[in-house]
Amino acid sequence: MKRPCVWKMLMAAMCVALLSGLQAQDLPRQVSIILLGATGDLARKYLWQGLFHLYLEEVGKGHHFRFHGTALTSTEQGQEVIAKVLESLSCPGDMASGHCAELKAQFQQLSEYRQLKTPEDYVALSKDIEAQVEHEGLRETGRIFYLSVPPFAYVDIARNINSSCRPGPGAWLRVVLEKPFGHDLHSAQQLATELGSFFQEEEMYRVDHYLGKQVVAQILPFRDQNRAALDGLWNRHHVERVEIVMKETLDAEGRTSFYEEYGVIRDVLQNHLTEVLTLVAMELPVNVSSPESVLQHKLQAFQALRSLQRHSAVLGQYQAYSGQVRRELQKPDSFHSLTPTFAGILVHIDNLRWEGVPFILMSGKALDERVSYVRILFKNQAFCVQSEKHWVAAQSHCLPRQIIFYIGHGELGSPAVLVSRNLFQPALPSASWKEVEGRPGLHLFGLPLSDYYAYSPVREQDAYSLLISHIFHCRKDSFVTTENLLASWVFWTPLLDSLAHEVPRFYPGGAENGQLLDFEFSGGHLSFSQPLPEQLVPGPDSAPLPSDFQVLRAKYRESPLISAWPEELIARLAGDIEAAAVRAVRRFGKFHLALSGGSSPVALFQQLATGHYSFPWAHTHLWLVDERCVPLWDPESNFQGLQTHLLQHVRVPHYNVHPMPVHRRQRLCAEEDQGAQAYAEEISALVTNGSFDLVLLGMGTDGHTASLFPQSPAGLDGEQLVVLTTSPSSPHRRMSLSLPLINRARKVAVLVMGRMKREIAMLVSRVGRDPKKWPISGVLPDSGQLVWYMDYDAFLG
Amino acid sequence: MKRPCVWKMLMAAMCVALLSGLQAQDLPRQVSIILLGATGDLARKYLWQGLFHLYLEEVGKGHHFRFHGTALTSTEQGQEVIAKVLESLSCPGDMASGHCAELKAQFQQLSEYRQLKTPEDYVALSKDIEAQVEHEGLRETGRIFYLSVPPFAYVDIARNINSSCRPGPGAWLRVVLEKPFGHDLHSAQQLATELGSFFQEEEMYRVDHYLGKQVVAQILPFRDQNRAALDGLWNRHHVERVEIVMKETLDAEGRTSFYEEYGVIRDVLQNHLTEVLTLVAMELPVNVSSPESVLQHKLQAFQALRSLQRHSAVLGQYQAYSGQVRRELQKPDSFHSLTPTFAGILVHIDNLRWEGVPFILMSGKALDERVSYVRILFKNQAFCVQSEKHWVAAQSHCLPRQIIFYIGHGELGSPAVLVSRNLFQPALPSASWKEVEGRPGLHLFGLPLSDYYAYSPVREQDAYSLLISHIFHCRKDSFVTTENLLASWVFWTPLLDSLAHEVPRFYPGGAENGQLLDFEFSGGHLSFSQPLPEQLVPGPDSAPLPSDFQVLRAKYRESPLISAWPEELIARLAGDIEAAAVRAVRRFGKFHLALSGGSSPVALFQQLATGHYSFPWAHTHLWLVDERCVPLWDPESNFQGLQTHLLQHVRVPHYNVHPMPVHRRQRLCAEEDQGAQAYAEEISALVTNGSFDLVLLGMGTDGHTASLFPQSPAGLDGEQLVVLTTSPSSPHRRMSLSLPLINRARKVAVLVMGRMKREIAMLVSRVGRDPKKWPISGVLPDSGQLVWYMDYDAFLG
Repeated sequence: MKRPCVWKMLMAAMCVALLSGLQAQDLPRQVSIILLGATGDLARKYLWQGLFHLYLEEVGKGHHFRFHGTALTSTEQGQEVIAKVLESLSCPGDMASGHCAELKAQFQQLSEYRQLKTPEDYVALSKDIEAQVEHEGLRETGRIFYLSVPPFAYVDIARNINSSCRPGPGAWLRVVLEKPFGHDLHSAQQLATELGSFFQEEEMYRVDHYLGKQVVAQILPFRDQNRAALDGLWNRHHVERVEIVMKETLDAEGRTSFYEEYGVIRDVLQNHLTEVLTLVAMELPVNVSSPESVLQHKLQAFQALRSLQRHSAVLGQYQAYSGQVRRELQKPDSFHSLTPTFAGILVHIDNLRWEGVPFILMSGKALDERVSYVRILFKNQAFCVQSEKHWVAAQSHCLPRQIIFYIGHGELGSPAVLVSRNLFQPALPSASWKEVEGRPGLHLFGLPLSDYYAYSPVREQDAYSLLISHIFHCRKDSFVTTENLLASWVFWTPLLDSLAHEVPRFYPGGAENGQLLDFEFSGGHLSFSQPLPEQLVPGPDSAPLPSDFQVLRAKYRESPLISAWPEELIARLAGDIEAAAVRAVRRFGKFHLALSGGSSPVALFQQLATGHYSFPWAHTHLWLVDERCVPLWDPESNFQGLQTHLLQHVRVPHYNVHPMPVHRRQRLCAEEDQGAQAYAEEISALVTNGSFDLVLLGMGTDGHTASLFPQSPAGLDGEQLVVLTTSPSSPHRRMSLSLPLINRARKVAVLVMGRMKREIAMLVSRVGRDPKKWPISGVLPDSGQLVWYMDYDAFLG
Repeated sequence: MKRPCVWKMLMAAMCVALLSGLQAQDLPRQVSIILLGATGDLARKYLWQGLFHLYLEEVGKGHHFRFHGTALTSTEQGQEVIAKVLESLSCPGDMASGHCAELKAQFQQLSEYRQLKTPEDYVALSKDIEAQVEHEGLRETGRIFYLSVPPFAYVDIARNINSSCRPGPGAWLRVVLEKPFGHDLHSAQQLATELGSFFQEEEMYRVDHYLGKQVVAQILPFRDQNRAALDGLWNRHHVERVEIVMKETLDAEGRTSFYEEYGVIRDVLQNHLTEVLTLVAMELPVNVSSPESVLQHKLQAFQALRSLQRHSAVLGQYQAYSGQVRRELQKPDSFHSLTPTFAGILVHIDNLRWEGVPFILMSGKALDERVSYVRILFKNQAFCVQSEKHWVAAQSHCLPRQIIFYIGHGELGSPAVLVSRNLFQPALPSASWKEVEGRPGLHLFGLPLSDYYAYSPVREQDAYSLLISHIFHCRKDSFVTTENLLASWVFWTPLLDSLAHEVPRFYPGGAENGQLLDFEFSGGHLSFSQPLPEQLVPGPDSAPLPSDFQVLRAKYRESPLISAWPEELIARLAGDIEAAAVRAVRRFGKFHLALSGGSSPVALFQQLATGHYSFPWAHTHLWLVDERCVPLWDPESNFQGLQTHLLQHVRVPHYNVHPMPVHRRQRLCAEEDQGAQAYAEEISALVTNGSFDLVLLGMGTDGHTASLFPQSPAGLDGEQLVVLTTSPSSPHRRMSLSLPLINRARKVAVLVMGRMKREIAMLVSRVGRDPKKWPISGVLPDSGQLVWYMDYDAFLG
């Protein structure tokens, strides 16, 4: 048996040594390339051509090559297929046909097909390579295994390669993997762990073929070569938006068994568009040709992405899709797929460079055109004094200024880099990029083509050719590392989970889509621009709309009840708070508002921050109803939520904001630090009679309110205004206004939202005053008003 | 002698009573209108026609009228002029010519010319009116004096009206004034005070004829009638920019004696464009037909305007201007005027509705077209999925969405209100506004006219006709009150002062201006888009620019000295602070910055707030170097200055802001409250070794720094980190970081600005270390760096 291929080394260092030709030994070197799945679609269409291209590039530069096409197919059948493929290979257009024929014959000579199925086959392959190398007096430099196989086959193959087919000492191994690399974070992690038990990180090359597209591969070099012009522009002060788009006209017919499991986000956005996003957004490394720097900066870009929310996405599905799935997967007539075939996503990047700039990712099948591009649109910060008819496109700063990485297809029909002439004249390497010829009448992104500096590749090159060359040259930055892969899944998985049951908007497909899929963003939320047309609504499944219901005015526990759908309820509550504020400021010159933490008030805070411009914030004092015993900057802190969602957006004077002193002398809620007493003193000093103008409460599923919990006596009665309490859930220690203090308020509003609250809402509606069991039942202002704000989910259970 | 017209009343109340017709007495009422300057240009062109229009409107509605044209001209000559004017009056187009002739004859009958020159003339006029009223069995209701005279004549006329020509008890007086109303805040105040000694505020009607333009007068009603559509849109989340523009093709030839004193800002921006700005920006009153509410909201809009800086403006002058001035004002050949004939101004409004939205005001003479408009451009927050060739203008949210109040002229040729069809269909009163007819080929603001809902007045009406009607109907909100006038001058005067010696950019005039006057904004600063072409630079007269000087790098007290003009100095200091912050955050994760109060840092705060977007505020702790023993909300508090000029504009987390605890338990700096100790503990707990990353100090004219004063030992040495001290000037009690604590800082920056500091700067440069005499001399960081930032005024004295 062959000695196990366990010898390890730092491939990166090896790459450098290899490329700089610093070899001590002087035997001629050989590289073996083993293409697994050599008879498959991808291999026949792209990979063999890519290998031939590599051969053409490298022949005569010091390496010998052998190409082993392998598959599960029998040797004879496989040889037949491969012979055909090899016959159809083509040379670049500028190569003399005689020379081409000669090189093609050489390549055919160096290529073989063999069945690779059993562990023994791998042993035999390895032996044959060794024998051939020795026979020809060569030294083996390395082996590339290109796995063009379905992912379920990865692990077996990997085990075989690792155990029986590693090259000998001093030679490297590279294993190339094709997507999908998992279905979500969990499965991606699992696959990564399995592969990691066979290969070093340096040995794995995960292909995202988008990174091999000429224009995508040019993004970083472009940013580098135009640093002087871009340095001041490539940031939130100048960029209005970034659009990263891949539109397809085809639909998923014939591929639904794959598509139904993946959908557009996993198929296109999680990989291709996200890779492009990081290339645009990352901080530019000093040395863009250092794969390590690029990969590290890319990872940092991932870390700055703001988490996606359910409302960061709009989803669509072309109308024929479910039918295709039913036919292809033998589903019953009642089957309706929820798999999206169209998605628009709004991404925000929380760093100083990009804060506030919308990155719009969009992809879909069955759209009106096939095109892919990245568009960076710059802000118009100019005022042009002359009448617009005098504007000169190439000079006027009032016309759109944009940079477009035109990845392919579309009306232009070829990859290109476009820069508005009123922006700057870009530098591109003249050996490989040429100016695009004029195309009168062609408009792109609002401007005629002639208004752009437009460059396209001198020679169009297929993505796989480029990637195969990059594998050979150790350009790891053109591939997806395990870290980057997992970072991308960390980003996408929560959104995918939260959208799992979302009904996509149905669209007819093609030009008929009209404006049906147009979407817009506001305050971080995406939504379709057009309301859903009736005829496209899926039948009886659709949820009732808020407008289907009247706002109910009723009583709950003998106090006024306001009930509505969440959005309307929040709007009502915000309006009522503003009215109370205006009244209080008019009467007393100030407004004392005590707010609860938790998730329900977040929507309220956002509503107050973005929709209430006349709120008298300058005269408002903000108090906390309760607080967790964590530092104020802890994400669990109620104050932190208040700060993030409200304080950052309005102008409350610093000294009118009263966080609870849970963190004193570097300790949390220590009795001896007397935080509760201090807060009580602060209240007594500033709030007349300790009567807050408005106290906003919530209600827990256990009937708690503020941080007053059942079966825990603190704060339910007595003289204390502020108390330390114990919560059944973590963090256990809390500080809270006491029930007697709450009941001194002029108005108490209790906000109850969500299905989770149904049961307790029902229960509390029937019980008497028993704060020890249900603290919320003790809320009854001495002389003030109590109003319940409940959404239908909580109330109509 | 006639009894003096001193009887006063609340005109506002009178107006209501009068309009609602609740008159106890039932004698027919008479109003006398006295037009002073009745033979002048304005009167002949507009005012007589306006009076006739009023007559046409009001005839038969219960009032009798008499019109007295007066001037200094002799009676005979005047009568001749007036007869001609009266003959040329025209009726609305839809009035039958016979009826017109009849009414015109009546009006001529009721109008007379008389010389009004001496005090006796006024007495006689008053007597004649009384006699006529009595003779005709009428009751005098009021008198309108329309002063169409140069402003130097105001005071004399006002005195005469007040002393001899007020109507009797029960009748009102209204005095109409034409601009200019002063030349700057001081002169406007002076004029207002003088007029105020003769008239009540309610009696004065200051005309800004822009407020009489039909489209301008429609802004508030439009906002009111379209509340539902505009409520969500009319704010910083949706408005991208507001442009308020008045372009003229004419130049100032023939009027340079006026123009040379005023220039474009005083002539157009301070009044017309500012009035329009307030109508767009103000919070919409609940009742827009209440003049009081409108005026009050307008005033609030003024108060929210951010102060203009020198860099808020770009100025131009058409090339022929100086030659015209030389000719018309007999100036020598060497004379070059600095009066701007073109200005672009960037206005920001510091309230929650408009924060961050650029309001661009622009006006100029000798431009390429005559047009006035207000353009509200909305943000594009949509993504349109289909290829742009499929976009349908009226529906696509990706095409410009805008509202334009087209005040007049331009390619449209008439006043109009335009609303993009992809925005909403506006409501306009159909009795007075009609849809504009199609004009194929006409593009306005990037869209064909057909892409707008476009409305123009059913009957075009001259501004003066409308204003004269509003005077009669007490519509005070169509006029400039004293408060509003002064608020406008408070806003404009500092800019005018700071631009007084600015050399405008010269432009050829007309279409030849090309893009020469285009300007752009960035970080609150305006600048011309194109660099200055050489041939237009004025000769040797031009003032030195800051860039003509080198920033001096030198030593002061053996530490580095940075010296420059104030603006550049502040920019340098702000840049250095940001660099220190970025360094500290990179190394330690946070930046501890201790800031001094006073006036010099205000400019620094503003610079940091508006010009340094990458400042790591989220990781910055702000400390106070010293504080006055006043409540934090006292305008004298250093903290208050910090809050107003810095904190409100950046996002520093609440718990990273550390005001000095000078106000504890309702007491100020009581020793027993241990505020100094508490601050010292806070510093010790958060700042490693008590070493601030940067301490910003100032230097008093007595050599004090922080609140460490000469001849007062507290804080000059010893162990205490924070001390209570006594200032020689009020408020005397202070809290201050101690000298030993300051000297522990990694960097200390001392900012010294202004002529007042010359002497002490000179003195301190020569003394040794003697903190008891000159506390500033004790500043010498133990191991940190000390840098002096002095402006030329302080340093080059």
